[in-house]
Amino acid sequence: MSNLPLPPARISPSLLAADFARLGEEVRNVIAAGADWIHFDVMDNHFVPNLSIGPMVCEAIRPHTEAPIDVHLMVEPVDALVPQFAKAGANIITFHPEASRHPDRTLSLIHDHGCRAGLVFNPATPLAWMDHVMDKLDIVLLMSVNPGFGGQAFIPSTLAKLKQTRARIDAWVQAGGQPIALEVDGGVKADNIAAIRAAGADTFVAGSAIFGKPDYKAVIEEMRREILKGESLQA
Amino acid sequence: MSNLPLPPARISPSLLAADFARLGEEVRNVIAAGADWIHFDVMDNHFVPNLSIGPMVCEAIRPHTEAPIDVHLMVEPVDALVPQFAKAGANIITFHPEASRHPDRTLSLIHDHGCRAGLVFNPATPLAWMDHVMDKLDIVLLMSVNPGFGGQAFIPSTLAKLKQTRARIDAWVQAGGQPIALEVDGGVKADNIAAIRAAGADTFVAGSAIFGKPDYKAVIEEMRREILKGESLQA
Amino acid sequence: MSNLPLPPARISPSLLAADFARLGEEVRNVIAAGADWIHFDVMDNHFVPNLSIGPMVCEAIRPHTEAPIDVHLMVEPVDALVPQFAKAGANIITFHPEASRHPDRTLSLIHDHGCRAGLVFNPATPLAWMDHVMDKLDIVLLMSVNPGFGGQAFIPSTLAKLKQTRARIDAWVQAGGQPIALEVDGGVKADNIAAIRAAGADTFVAGSAIFGKPDYKAVIEEMRREILKGESLQA
Amino acid sequence: MSNLPLPPARISPSLLAADFARLGEEVRNVIAAGADWIHFDVMDNHFVPNLSIGPMVCEAIRPHTEAPIDVHLMVEPVDALVPQFAKAGANIITFHPEASRHPDRTLSLIHDHGCRAGLVFNPATPLAWMDHVMDKLDIVLLMSVNPGFGGQAFIPSTLAKLKQTRARIDAWVQAGGQPIALEVDGGVKADNIAAIRAAGADTFVAGSAIFGKPDYKAVIEEMRREILKGESLQA
Amino acid sequence: MSNLPLPPARISPSLLAADFARLGEEVRNVIAAGADWIHFDVMDNHFVPNLSIGPMVCEAIRPHTEAPIDVHLMVEPVDALVPQFAKAGANIITFHPEASRHPDRTLSLIHDHGCRAGLVFNPATPLAWMDHVMDKLDIVLLMSVNPGFGGQAFIPSTLAKLKQTRARIDAWVQAGGQPIALEVDGGVKADNIAAIRAAGADTFVAGSAIFGKPDYKAVIEEMRREILKGESLQA
Amino acid sequence: MSNLPLPPARISPSLLAADFARLGEEVRNVIAAGADWIHFDVMDNHFVPNLSIGPMVCEAIRPHTEAPIDVHLMVEPVDALVPQFAKAGANIITFHPEASRHPDRTLSLIHDHGCRAGLVFNPATPLAWMDHVMDKLDIVLLMSVNPGFGGQAFIPSTLAKLKQTRARIDAWVQAGGQPIALEVDGGVKADNIAAIRAAGADTFVAGSAIFGKPDYKAVIEEMRREILKGESLQA
Repeated sequence: MSNLPLPPARISPSLLAADFARLGEEVRNVIAAGADWIHFDVMDNHFVPNLSIGPMVCEAIRPHTEAPIDVHLMVEPVDALVPQFAKAGANIITFHPEASRHPDRTLSLIHDHGCRAGLVFNPATPLAWMDHVMDKLDIVLLMSVNPGFGGQAFIPSTLAKLKQTRARIDAWVQAGGQPIALEVDGGVKADNIAAIRAAGADTFVAGSAIFGKPDYKAVIEEMRREILKGESLQA
Repeated sequence: MSNLPLPPARISPSLLAADFARLGEEVRNVIAAGADWIHFDVMDNHFVPNLSIGPMVCEAIRPHTEAPIDVHLMVEPVDALVPQFAKAGANIITFHPEASRHPDRTLSLIHDHGCRAGLVFNPATPLAWMDHVMDKLDIVLLMSVNPGFGGQAFIPSTLAKLKQTRARIDAWVQAGGQPIALEVDGGVKADNIAAIRAAGADTFVAGSAIFGKPDYKAVIEEMRREILKGESLQA
Repeated sequence: MSNLPLPPARISPSLLAADFARLGEEVRNVIAAGADWIHFDVMDNHFVPNLSIGPMVCEAIRPHTEAPIDVHLMVEPVDALVPQFAKAGANIITFHPEASRHPDRTLSLIHDHGCRAGLVFNPATPLAWMDHVMDKLDIVLLMSVNPGFGGQAFIPSTLAKLKQTRARIDAWVQAGGQPIALEVDGGVKADNIAAIRAAGADTFVAGSAIFGKPDYKAVIEEMRREILKGESLQA
Repeated sequence: MSNLPLPPARISPSLLAADFARLGEEVRNVIAAGADWIHFDVMDNHFVPNLSIGPMVCEAIRPHTEAPIDVHLMVEPVDALVPQFAKAGANIITFHPEASRHPDRTLSLIHDHGCRAGLVFNPATPLAWMDHVMDKLDIVLLMSVNPGFGGQAFIPSTLAKLKQTRARIDAWVQAGGQPIALEVDGGVKADNIAAIRAAGADTFVAGSAIFGKPDYKAVIEEMRREILKGESLQA
Repeated sequence: MSNLPLPPARISPSLLAADFARLGEEVRNVIAAGADWIHFDVMDNHFVPNLSIGPMVCEAIRPHTEAPIDVHLMVEPVDALVPQFAKAGANIITFHPEASRHPDRTLSLIHDHGCRAGLVFNPATPLAWMDHVMDKLDIVLLMSVNPGFGGQAFIPSTLAKLKQTRARIDAWVQAGGQPIALEVDGGVKADNIAAIRAAGADTFVAGSAIFGKPDYKAVIEEMRREILKGESLQA
Repeated sequence: MSNLPLPPARISPSLLAADFARLGEEVRNVIAAGADWIHFDVMDNHFVPNLSIGPMVCEAIRPHTEAPIDVHLMVEPVDALVPQFAKAGANIITFHPEASRHPDRTLSLIHDHGCRAGLVFNPATPLAWMDHVMDKLDIVLLMSVNPGFGGQAFIPSTLAKLKQTRARIDAWVQAGGQPIALEVDGGVKADNIAAIRAAGADTFVAGSAIFGKPDYKAVIEEMRREILKGESLQA
């Protein structure tokens, strides 16, 4: 791997595991507990076999925090929802390249609406979808479960894929490219987050691992301690 | 029109206009203010150009009330979501006949999952989709706006369509058939609800007309007074 | 109802319930037992949630009988399969109007390939799809179950729909139109076939009711006796 | 039939049969020859099995005439193309109800963009799609061939469908409704246009019958004479 | 290439070329003639332009042999058919990664239903779809024709693709991974099977090359002799 | 990069920017001004969000020139249009691999209809779609804008992608493969064409850069001078 230091770690709790009957409160509590971003999972029952929450829900939670809202679009097609989420207060919008006929256009569209943009890779999706759009990526999200449901177990082969992605990003940055966040989503917990950090991730989505526990602060602090362990593993 | 008395009126406030950041509280408040059902609008960004809320949100509000949850599926295809909503606590599930290749099967599927079942008619959709499934309908929902967004104005030609639907239902009941609720959704407000009642509706969905006002109880009471006026108009 | 005598009855056993490991033999046996047509159910896992048999299977059974092969296309779209089935030896091809953007064209296409053509109506599908193509119909098939699986129970409201369809056909014939066969498919058995005949059907598809029994001849003969009872009921 | 006089006749030559290498000139010539509208056939290779011309071509011919451009959308879905054609200079936009999930919304969308709006009926499509949107129709177009190709023969059952449609429109107008044009498209020629007029049409699309002839003016004049004969037939 | 010895060769005759009127007998005969697996081609007229045979046919042939049934799904989407084929007696299920939005999930789903799982690569499909799921593959199937029809000629560039795939599999096994079968399907005959073996294949699908001949045993024995020649070519 | 000399340069003006009201004249003029091919952009409003021109327009311009017509299919699916364009006079047909389930079959289909065949790569599409079909490619087209509209700016990362593609082609040719043209489309102008040539392109699509100017000949000559500069840059 490269010799670049890992970017600072961020925790982005997924609302998928929060109490949908009081989302505003959940958002305030988890940010107060030390989370960095709010991860917002959008499912349309077409790209994934489930339907979750859309732009109106994003707009409703927007006043409850100043933290970035990190919208993961598990939808197809993608483009029509981009302006709706930008208007609803999203800060980051990521999508799956298979779900857009024109991923380069969609990345530009997200930027044109004032948001950071990124690609999401399903567990089996080849990394080659990054090859020709590195200059338009603010973030890459690797799925460590197959999207559609919360509470699934981390897929082990994601660690190798994370290392490959980290190497691509570091090479890009070393060649003068802009920084690109490397996020991982699915089955992330305190007991595997060190290994995930060591493999190169800098942004950690966690759903049931946080919202399923009574004390959000305690979990997030434990995750941060484990992330530090992961950094020492990497070095 | 027939000489059957209108069934008792029900008000089913649409969560589409509620505060999605505190849905549990909204549900409790609107039921406490006198609403009968909770209208739950499901949009998948395919049947309609918007994405709203899915089964997990239904499950989250279920513990907040014992009132029936009246799920309107603006999705296509339909069948995969039926068991998910039944499990999430839905009591009534309605869908659009154009969105299912086998509407008779979908009606049976909803019944098999222990829910009441109904068809929804878009403003332009012919009523003939009722012809051969009258015995499987617990409810018919006429859209008085094109679905996808809240806050639209009531389409006037719905009144004539309501009268035709009421006549079909009354004829069915008079021939010994089971009762079928007649619901209307879209732009229903205190100032037009009398005319809508007079045209034959018995279940009234209202979104912004209720949740957009500070005092839910006052609005609902005003609506009930207007509904009574509508009954006298009809007679 | 009209005073036209019912057309002679025909029995069209559905291969869906036959032994797919020896279809040629099944075809020969059931025709030897007195069946009139062979009903061939084509499912594509898109129009219906199952996949059955296609043109190559039709071609394989063609040499085993001279009886008409009555192909029911439960597929969408329809047009590309029409020439394939015509070439494979089909004599009659029916399809669902919802599955073709241009049902009139599809009817002509079937005729152009030398086959008799018809529309199939799902249990909930309005009869209005017949309105403007009466002159192109050789057959109308009413589904008395939702297609996709064998062994389902006959839907009772089909009887009323049969009567309406018979009335339309009789009116057409009385006005000088060509004869149109009226077929019914789904849950047809010896114990309900009399009522189905009385309601106006002339062609009877039966799957498990025939192939599920050890003696095809006995079942078919029993069916014919019951059909005669149905005729006397009607008169 | 009703006793309302037929509205004045209009001829709308279809560019489908014009020389696409010099459309501006064709448009000027056919209008100079006495045509009333320009019929613009849009095919997307999805609703119909052909691809023709889109908004950029409409924009290109716009400066060549002040006659209304009558855009027939043989596309699905419909809504995204409406603003593009309005901006490109269309005056009338018609579409197929099967191609839009929300035909009432699409009609309003066309009006909102300043164009006249209408529904098109494929040969087999039931007229019931008119039932609940009469107040939003400026025009109804009956296809007398299955759309997708020029040069097809007129389907005879269209005459009966025309009479039914004329009766619906006349009843609507007599009840105080706005006028609704009744257009027919497919296989219209000088030798059948009288019968078509007699059946109630007021707007006549003709493609190869006009552009396939050397003298546009002579054909159009012949058609007008035949239309007059048709009026006398009706009376 | 690697220095791993090739796995033992297997022959998997494709039922696509068998007599569909007596499949049970064909299955028994070809296994008696020395075949190892039964290759079962499932086409849905959507992923490929043909419709073949589905789960009910698989269930019908299951009692006729104890040999593994090797189901190749040329369908999209994939997931709904997996449990149906597992229940119908399939032992191996392969699918195309383009046909599933979540190939990693589909591989797990096949395993969860007790079957061996694999990916199929169309002639032009990049091998990168293997990159991140090597640990879930029991088999890789390279198409040497474009699927949809029997009797096509072997595409020569498949040989180079086979060598690349063999190298990937050998590297995986040498690094401690599980064995992965390497199957080839399309135009395989006695006169090219040596070259195909030399390029690294271990499982050979053959349709018309076997079922098109009077003596299945003679063909299979000839193929095995040629496979041995291929092994010596490779060494 | 390789040491092969670049193939001679070709200019293929895109009709997307021509005057659609007089296409025949535009075609004659631009060829007289020195263009080599006519680039014909086909959009179906499904693969791209626009609808342009189809086979009938191609047929109309065919008599106006003997220059090759270079058809770029921005449509999905692809196969049905191939014979239509071949019959309409196309010489070269290119398509997007994502738009065909079987790109190898589509390439063969184009050849079978007597045309040269190629793949088009959207800006983000990985080059791996070339891996296994090099022997069937006459041309590779790299999009330097996201297709659907004229007048967009050249995407800079295309230069790196061009170099990679040129290296693949040169390696193929040096190994004895047939020549493959390397075309670029989107935002090509006199002021960037030198850099594009230096990156390895040999065929240059230009729309507004040519048709937007009064003197086609002057622009094309300027482009050729700049192309020569690009060649010296490369050397």
